Amino acid sequence: MLSNVRIVLVRTSHPGNIGAAARAMKTMGLRQLCLVSPKIFPSLEATARATSAEDLIQEAKVYSTLAEAVSDCGMVIGASGRSRHIPWPEHTPRGAATLALSQVATVAIVFGNESTGLSNVELDQCHALLRIPTHPEHRSLNVAAAVQIVAYELYLAASDVPKVIETPSTPVATFEDIERLYVHLEETLIKIGFLNPEQPNLLMRRLRRLFQRARLDTTEVQLLRGILRAAQECSSNCS
Amino acid sequence: MLSNVRIVLVRTSHPGNIGAAARAMKTMGLRQLCLVSPKIFPSLEATARATSAEDLIQEAKVYSTLAEAVSDCGMVIGASGRSRHIPWPEHTPRGAATLALSQVATVAIVFGNESTGLSNVELDQCHALLRIPTHPEHRSLNVAAAVQIVAYELYLAASDVPKVIETPSTPVATFEDIERLYVHLEETLIKIGFLNPEQPNLLMRRLRRLFQRARLDTTEVQLLRGILRAAQECSSNCS
Repeated sequence: MLSNVRIVLVRTSHPGNIGAAARAMKTMGLRQLCLVSPKIFPSLEATARATSAEDLIQEAKVYSTLAEAVSDCGMVIGASGRSRHIPWPEHTPRGAATLALSQVATVAIVFGNESTGLSNVELDQCHALLRIPTHPEHRSLNVAAAVQIVAYELYLAASDVPKVIETPSTPVATFEDIERLYVHLEETLIKIGFLNPEQPNLLMRRLRRLFQRARLDTTEVQLLRGILRAAQECSSNCS
Repeated sequence: MLSNVRIVLVRTSHPGNIGAAARAMKTMGLRQLCLVSPKIFPSLEATARATSAEDLIQEAKVYSTLAEAVSDCGMVIGASGRSRHIPWPEHTPRGAATLALSQVATVAIVFGNESTGLSNVELDQCHALLRIPTHPEHRSLNVAAAVQIVAYELYLAASDVPKVIETPSTPVATFEDIERLYVHLEETLIKIGFLNPEQPNLLMRRLRRLFQRARLDTTEVQLLRGILRAAQECSSNCS
């Protein structure tokens, strides 16, 4: 359902783009706009460019980190303009729209800063990536134009996708639950001597990728945390 | 072919929209921009909003009537936001893209003024109409956003992009590798006291399901087995 889809704009530099994104959303039936550390907001320019979507601008929620903006989401899809070093499947807007609308939980679709996109840390917080196909030599889409394309595909998908919805037997874990799992995992790997606490990044990123892809449900998170507790206790008993 | 498609903007009021339309075109491999009686052009604002599509702005041709702008075209498709009094088939952007690319002659896709759209005389000069689906109560698409959606559909139709773009990746692990991982996992869980060796089934089935869903690659299998080895060694040291 479109009402379950949240658009998150991260570190947007130009307030005009925030307004244009709100307008793009409203024409396609989207209403939930979140802003993470916008450079200038509120702003007359944002409101002017929003035209009749001024209400979305007024209702927009502002957060300081992506993690806060998506804490209650069951799926986070990051828009990426770059090829990544670590392989990671990228959905087209059409594929991502189908994926988003098949979820029961709230889905965030996240767009980064105009020049720098999303950071690696932010991309690691996503469950899936989407890339808008462009001419290979001219990739520089405006962020509000990117929102427009994705919103358009969502609207199309919502208008004709049969209401067959993936119903997981157990609810998917929330963003927060999963982040706590990663903290627990990192602690445990350090404790059993697998992870060098000085240099956890690449390894943890790979493990995140793996679990993000699997989209854990709440039972699985509990199960994995049970295993981590057992491993920690076992290593405590010997030290 | 995309090089046969011309975008025509008619009586555009805001030069920023001309720039944004040029940028939208260039990202999707379109290059022919024609302007019919633009209110303000040339304009610094148009050039600024075009960013890296400044060349399209410089090469844009300016005409005083639509008839002149499309005089050499074999097909003219008008973008229409309004329902017409005279019944007239309206293509979706996707349908219009297929139609445009199936022509041998040059095809013009025409977008009217921000407030008033195309006049009846201009609509009568079109061979077909296209309408972008929108929320029925919020139809007010920005003209550059409309160009972006149509250009995107043209680019997709021209390139037949698959639904998921797989980035070059590490090969997925073989069935055998993964089965060995499960054996190793089960041994380890018994060793750290998490799994009752008498009744491993349900728990192992849940874990298998989780990892099967993630479709592990060879690097990830090695990584997970490294963790299992570390956990086993850690528990051996204490027994």
